[in-house]
Amino acid sequence: MENMNLSKHISGQFTAELDDIRNRVLAMGGLVERQLEQAIDALSALDAELAQQVIAGDHKVNGMEVSIDEECTRIIAKRQPAASDLRLIIAISKTIADLERIGDACVRIAKAALDKRLNNQQPLLVSVENMGRHATRILHATLDALARMDADAALALHKEDAKLDREYEGIIRQLMTYMMEDPRSIPDILDVLWAARAVERVGDRCKNICEYIIYYVKGKDVRHTSYEEMEKDMQS
Amino acid sequence: MENMNLSKHISGQFTAELDDIRNRVLAMGGLVERQLEQAIDALSALDAELAQQVIAGDHKVNGMEVSIDEECTRIIAKRQPAASDLRLIIAISKTIADLERIGDACVRIAKAALDKRLNNQQPLLVSVENMGRHATRILHATLDALARMDADAALALHKEDAKLDREYEGIIRQLMTYMMEDPRSIPDILDVLWAARAVERVGDRCKNICEYIIYYVKGKDVRHTSYEEMEKDMQS
Repeated sequence: MENMNLSKHISGQFTAELDDIRNRVLAMGGLVERQLEQAIDALSALDAELAQQVIAGDHKVNGMEVSIDEECTRIIAKRQPAASDLRLIIAISKTIADLERIGDACVRIAKAALDKRLNNQQPLLVSVENMGRHATRILHATLDALARMDADAALALHKEDAKLDREYEGIIRQLMTYMMEDPRSIPDILDVLWAARAVERVGDRCKNICEYIIYYVKGKDVRHTSYEEMEKDMQS
Repeated sequence: MENMNLSKHISGQFTAELDDIRNRVLAMGGLVERQLEQAIDALSALDAELAQQVIAGDHKVNGMEVSIDEECTRIIAKRQPAASDLRLIIAISKTIADLERIGDACVRIAKAALDKRLNNQQPLLVSVENMGRHATRILHATLDALARMDADAALALHKEDAKLDREYEGIIRQLMTYMMEDPRSIPDILDVLWAARAVERVGDRCKNICEYIIYYVKGKDVRHTSYEEMEKDMQS
């Protein structure tokens, strides 16, 4: 009887630990989402103060990655999880690496916002802002799917990233035209190009996180497989 | 007696399994190193055939990542490793993710090699080739440090990446001058820019792998810490 209680207690503690890291990942995701929103705000308004705030805030994102990663290792060593518990921890430890890199992308976007001469490139800034808002929505939906561990939503988001890629290609073409028309503006336009590239990478990171969600729910590693194959995997 | 033999046998098997994933990571590293060499060769000679070979070879890199990752998960679930064994598996599972991304960088470099008009940009190609050879040496040394789990070598390599970053900045400046002088060449020069960017990212990935080596050897997560802090950590 005592033993049973003990084992219940241990497993209850284990569940609490898993809940705790899930909550911490979602908190980290919320922080990264705010960073992205503010980075895009800073770029579209060329608000240097806000940009500096985003740049300064990145260390919090980094700190969260390291501490959640430590906790994942501690749980693996202590609890020796198997099956879906282990998949959850692995999915989380991969997710935080991608969230941290989205944080880095926010810093790169914020750095472009420090270039005051971009005031002469308003149409370009509007294009990148639109793309940035799109990426923010994708990140928000990805974090939602993560909170609910919703593999169907994750699969749908995978497709959404392709749209962001096309938007990005359009912006690159636009950037090239502007550079060719006014070669003196090339250094400034390259700043916009790095920002656009960073936004595009946010979509890729979200796609990765969606793959971890599917891995957790379905127990299948769907990286490097096509959308059609993934869809088939999901039905099985 | 039988029990002791059994436990010896199990632990011997476990050691063999760990050796096996270490060897597989090194084999994957060797493949990625060849991909990088050939991608740089293809770019400097604008050899489309070799470039296509690199692009086609990437699926092997991806496949190795997925299969090693599966094996890591299987070992964690089956062997319930702790302490340095667990750190080894974690270091390996992170390393293969970075190796896979170096593989993606090779594809990006190879894609630039398909642009025949780059024939008119020989000086730029030479700069990127030099930088690419530098990155290849860094990757080679990183894989060496990984094979020997040499934390001192890993720390030294961390510093080498800063040199590659400076080389990259120089190339970007050179690219901007060329674009401003001949705006019609902008689309081609952007292809070189993406290749240079991909080479720079190879250095970042190597730096990550070096951090995992230090994590394994010293049991300390040194990500997001400065070189000076890392040096101090290494002495303790």
